[in-house]
Amino acid sequence: MVKLGPVFSLATVSPSTGDGETTDNGEAIINLDHGDPTMYEKYWQRMGDKTTVVISGWQFTSYFSDPKNLCWFLEPELAEEVVRLHRVVGNAITKDYHIVVGTGSSQLFQAALYALSSDASEPMSVVSAAPYYSSYPVITDCLKSGLYKWEGDAQAFDKSGPYIELVTSPNNPDGFVRQSVVNRSGGILVHDLAYYWPQYTPITTPADHDLMLFTVSKTTGHAGMRIGWALVKDEIIARKIVKYIELSTIGVSKDSQLRAAKVLRAVSDSCGVAHPFKEETFFGFSHHSMESRWMLLREAVNRSGIFSLPEFTPGFCNFWNRVFEPLPAFAWLKCGDGIEDCESFLRGHKIWTRSGRYFGVSPSYVRISMLDRDRTFNLFVKRLSRIRSQRRMRLEHVD
Amino acid sequence: MVKLGPVFSLATVSPSTGDGETTDNGEAIINLDHGDPTMYEKYWQRMGDKTTVVISGWQFTSYFSDPKNLCWFLEPELAEEVVRLHRVVGNAITKDYHIVVGTGSSQLFQAALYALSSDASEPMSVVSAAPYYSSYPVITDCLKSGLYKWEGDAQAFDKSGPYIELVTSPNNPDGFVRQSVVNRSGGILVHDLAYYWPQYTPITTPADHDLMLFTVSKTTGHAGMRIGWALVKDEIIARKIVKYIELSTIGVSKDSQLRAAKVLRAVSDSCGVAHPFKEETFFGFSHHSMESRWMLLREAVNRSGIFSLPEFTPGFCNFWNRVFEPLPAFAWLKCGDGIEDCESFLRGHKIWTRSGRYFGVSPSYVRISMLDRDRTFNLFVKRLSRIRSQRRMRLEHVD
Repeated sequence: MVKLGPVFSLATVSPSTGDGETTDNGEAIINLDHGDPTMYEKYWQRMGDKTTVVISGWQFTSYFSDPKNLCWFLEPELAEEVVRLHRVVGNAITKDYHIVVGTGSSQLFQAALYALSSDASEPMSVVSAAPYYSSYPVITDCLKSGLYKWEGDAQAFDKSGPYIELVTSPNNPDGFVRQSVVNRSGGILVHDLAYYWPQYTPITTPADHDLMLFTVSKTTGHAGMRIGWALVKDEIIARKIVKYIELSTIGVSKDSQLRAAKVLRAVSDSCGVAHPFKEETFFGFSHHSMESRWMLLREAVNRSGIFSLPEFTPGFCNFWNRVFEPLPAFAWLKCGDGIEDCESFLRGHKIWTRSGRYFGVSPSYVRISMLDRDRTFNLFVKRLSRIRSQRRMRLEHVD
Repeated sequence: MVKLGPVFSLATVSPSTGDGETTDNGEAIINLDHGDPTMYEKYWQRMGDKTTVVISGWQFTSYFSDPKNLCWFLEPELAEEVVRLHRVVGNAITKDYHIVVGTGSSQLFQAALYALSSDASEPMSVVSAAPYYSSYPVITDCLKSGLYKWEGDAQAFDKSGPYIELVTSPNNPDGFVRQSVVNRSGGILVHDLAYYWPQYTPITTPADHDLMLFTVSKTTGHAGMRIGWALVKDEIIARKIVKYIELSTIGVSKDSQLRAAKVLRAVSDSCGVAHPFKEETFFGFSHHSMESRWMLLREAVNRSGIFSLPEFTPGFCNFWNRVFEPLPAFAWLKCGDGIEDCESFLRGHKIWTRSGRYFGVSPSYVRISMLDRDRTFNLFVKRLSRIRSQRRMRLEHVD
């Protein structure tokens, strides 16, 4: 049987609300295992009715959105707003690309595997450089497909024959900007650009890869909509991606597509009416939030003496028109001081994170979501600081 | 490579709007290939604002709906309305069942295959009595899974070992009430009850099978929502179905779940406030529409001398408290008169249908949607009548 790592493992794990869960000793569990983007709720609350949608009972009795479009289940409004937002932000080329909507980018990732491997005579190898997104191996192998097969770390990949390399940039879990590493003939690249937005990383160039994946969840924070999109250069591949989504779910919720269109429009609009760096713009709010969170986290980590975080090279961002240091959606924390299993160590302190072993590397690492609500994040930083203090106190006591 | 039959084949095929598509000679193409349930639009338009939903911009930034529920992505409101509607209609037991929401019932079908086969040592056989739903073989085999494998017509199934039998009742395409046919040890049944609603068929008993699938698309006509649900007796199976939907799409659109809840509530409410047989109730409207459509179609077919339709035994319906004859969502039309390929024959008359060969039987059959808008349906019946007239005229001319 296929080993299912904790993609979500939600049957037994509750997300942190920051005010609900408590353990035996009355200390709240801080669950930062998932990348639940509830940080964004506050911004949308401030926007009031601007992005409220009203859907009448008679709407959407058809499977079809735009029968003449290659992607017949794509709402034209959403397609327009995707194109506009990429133009406003400058993070991807859309001209001469086919847009395919998916039920989140997870579904589009599976659709891409299908599209790229359906003509292969034997299972295509699927690889990604470690640390790679923990869902990739699980999703790739869960049905034991004869079309494709997870082959692990791209850096160690030495099989011949065609392969699919997944390039997540900025990378989940560690936040680094990435390029393909195998670079052999017969390789096909899928670029997961879920985090290539100006709240997280400098926008250096409009991406123009053959197959690029994006998701509303990480762009605007609306994970509950389950809306992602692919930008696809080749028409035949685009048609196969569409076919997979037809087979898998006969299209994508039109209600959510309508809402996603409205939310993306508000993001583009907000960039137009105010200086983008102001808090009333979506990216202004998000970028400020990420800067302040990373500052707080780095302070706590620097004081700790136990933990360390990746160090990023600052880059010039065409969107902000200034240099800044990446502010990833996840913190990739390393435990030192001889602690081998960082996940268990933090769990002892009621902080739930995801172990490095699910990302193909050492369990001395954990991935921590940076996108939870303020209250949860502040509780987390405070608790992390306390861990250090307790150690220091113990050491002082021994002295 | 897996042969992909026309599940939708939408890249090249446009749905009929009844007022758009025309062919070279100015005659409209009538596309009844898909089961697009646009017939229901009229009812929901009449209901005005009753089922309008308003969703604020800040809603649904989380992946989670109900973290403590086995199905953590199920909106509690939808769960309540599913239970209530089954109680009002009397078509399924929900007590002691787990409810799992899916992106349409197609996704739940795939989730069921995964859940039932993930522990098997070799690929499980998947069978269904012909004529079976045309998507079953395509979906089952599209990824060449090592967990399960399409083995075709259940009536011809003679392999040993565990198997999954799909029982669609009433059946798509032919509308007959069905039971399992293999009945061997090691068999697991999946009941697709998408059409077990009182507009289509007598409700004779509350169904209580181990695993039952339903979909909003065929219940209320909201295909664009992509919402289905499974009622699952066994907790371990339910957890695996949830796991698959987590892997496949990390849950299901919350916007559509909210809308589905509102629409199901309106259906239940309408049954409470008026005599159910009145047109202002949802099932009253739908049942009347189906009766009138089937009467018109049978008239046209009886006059034709070319075509025939299934004959159904009337049954007592506990919901309507009267006897009636099934009124399926699809017409399963047979061409006589030596016409071997009914799909091609009708295509010559600009009527697009789906050939029997996709359902595992002879191409002398076609499946025709009965759920399109009035205008399209009326055009179809008129055109079908004209085919007869032309033949008669030719015969008379020869005489």
